Amino acid sequence: MRENEFSLINRHFKGRGGACHPFTHLAIGDDASLHKLAAGMELVISTDTSVENVHWPDDLPLEVAADRAVCSALSDLAAMGAEAVAVWVNVMASDQDAVKAIAEGVSSALTRYNVELVGGDTCRSATNALAVTVAGQLPEGTAMRRDTAQENDNIWLVGVLGLHALGLQQWMSGNKQGAFVHHINEIAPNLAAGVHLREMGVSCCIDVSDGLLQDATHLATASGIGMDIEVTQVPQWPELCQQLGDSNLVFDAVAFGGEDYALLFTAPVSMNIPADLAVKIGNCRAGSGVNLYRDAVVCHVEKQGFLHFE
Amino acid sequence: MRENEFSLINRHFKGRGGACHPFTHLAIGDDASLHKLAAGMELVISTDTSVENVHWPDDLPLEVAADRAVCSALSDLAAMGAEAVAVWVNVMASDQDAVKAIAEGVSSALTRYNVELVGGDTCRSATNALAVTVAGQLPEGTAMRRDTAQENDNIWLVGVLGLHALGLQQWMSGNKQGAFVHHINEIAPNLAAGVHLREMGVSCCIDVSDGLLQDATHLATASGIGMDIEVTQVPQWPELCQQLGDSNLVFDAVAFGGEDYALLFTAPVSMNIPADLAVKIGNCRAGSGVNLYRDAVVCHVEKQGFLHFE
Repeated sequence: MRENEFSLINRHFKGRGGACHPFTHLAIGDDASLHKLAAGMELVISTDTSVENVHWPDDLPLEVAADRAVCSALSDLAAMGAEAVAVWVNVMASDQDAVKAIAEGVSSALTRYNVELVGGDTCRSATNALAVTVAGQLPEGTAMRRDTAQENDNIWLVGVLGLHALGLQQWMSGNKQGAFVHHINEIAPNLAAGVHLREMGVSCCIDVSDGLLQDATHLATASGIGMDIEVTQVPQWPELCQQLGDSNLVFDAVAFGGEDYALLFTAPVSMNIPADLAVKIGNCRAGSGVNLYRDAVVCHVEKQGFLHFE
Repeated sequence: MRENEFSLINRHFKGRGGACHPFTHLAIGDDASLHKLAAGMELVISTDTSVENVHWPDDLPLEVAADRAVCSALSDLAAMGAEAVAVWVNVMASDQDAVKAIAEGVSSALTRYNVELVGGDTCRSATNALAVTVAGQLPEGTAMRRDTAQENDNIWLVGVLGLHALGLQQWMSGNKQGAFVHHINEIAPNLAAGVHLREMGVSCCIDVSDGLLQDATHLATASGIGMDIEVTQVPQWPELCQQLGDSNLVFDAVAFGGEDYALLFTAPVSMNIPADLAVKIGNCRAGSGVNLYRDAVVCHVEKQGFLHFE
């Protein structure tokens, strides 16, 4: 049966995703959604686009691509330390089957993280794509930002780096069963860790979506400081070097590979960070720019991370 | 000079659009934007996608297409009676020139309606497109909705119908200088009228984006009532019939043509609606469905309005 976009939205999107949140008073079905913010809370909003053949290869199932698109948007809330409260999705789809597949992926991610789908729209496009807008909340004035790192802060990492890039390389080279491929499907926004960090008093954080070097540079630039990072301290470095047999491959994946959605944050030396939450990978310093070290030797790098209009 | 997306965003988007609003505490530049809502206010959010060759012909200048995309998103706030307070834009662009042209159009619309651009992202795509997310505010519990029309309410219209469709027909047929073509470029969200209606106590409203019949049907269905509408009462009906020499063309443009962004609202018979604000075009009744009348004769119609996956 052929359906129009209204029946498609009702059937595939309405009421999907996580449970209703008190933030939302009117969800899908009107010209806009309606929301209230609890007293003393601040609203956090981010939006993220994912496009076929740019953010995912066109032979990746659309369900997976859509799930990833939602997770990647939620990761921006994790980086601010916000609790996720609502999501809107713009679906651009080549046909009805694509709408259905994208809806499955969106619902799957939102159900996993218990966030309600409160609005969006669905339209036809020659290129499959999603724009995912996410809202979160946190107590006023407590958001983690990019511009609050201080000289001498330690630099910490929650999560892994490089595994998604290694998986994508295998997938793109035709090795669809490669050992790292499952990391393409399993990206996980560190929402709980983000809230935990914010509650501990961490003030400076970013999610690593475009590679360690590029995202660390965003943070250093915004804060007006420099950074020294020892890449061999990132989780699984020795295991990866052994597994791949070439530490240069690991270095490239860690430094330039994106989409693992680790959280990179800084904290004063005096702050006690639990070892099961994060690993220390470097220090902030006066000056500017990010130096990557490999076994204490500074690395000279040419490229940065993923750029859309290089 | 080739630029990456970060310098493109800084140069073309950051600080563009209207003045800062107290709603926003942190705009473009971090993982998310930060906002506070004044006490007693409700947040209104809508998002709208516009895709090349679907929402606009690919020979229309991208500046115009982007301006229209923003206006069409703002129109959803008008339909709820909200004051527009912030906009996020996801730009999908085939190359840097397209980014620049889209940024011009976005800035132009936001400057005209004095709404701040507070976030978004920019990426490469084979198909030029925008997703525009808009936030508005209004006093708690006062939003105009689709589901509050009552039997015997009058049906009113703010703005015009059909002119965009007639302009698009001329443009698509190669008549780029046609008398109606300027209506493609000049869509105007009825933001001030929306606020005015809400303040007058109007509770039921929708913006006409997909044609009078389709959008009136949304409203009738959501409210659980029927509607009788006399199309010859829409503004400029006699003039258009005279100008085109065929009233069937006018009927089709009014009933099925979208994107004029008129506001269709209902109000109790007792409510005094100023003649310079809106024209009465019909009445609500018990039952269901929308009947269009032409000089008091009911019209039998097959099609509805624009559908993406017909």
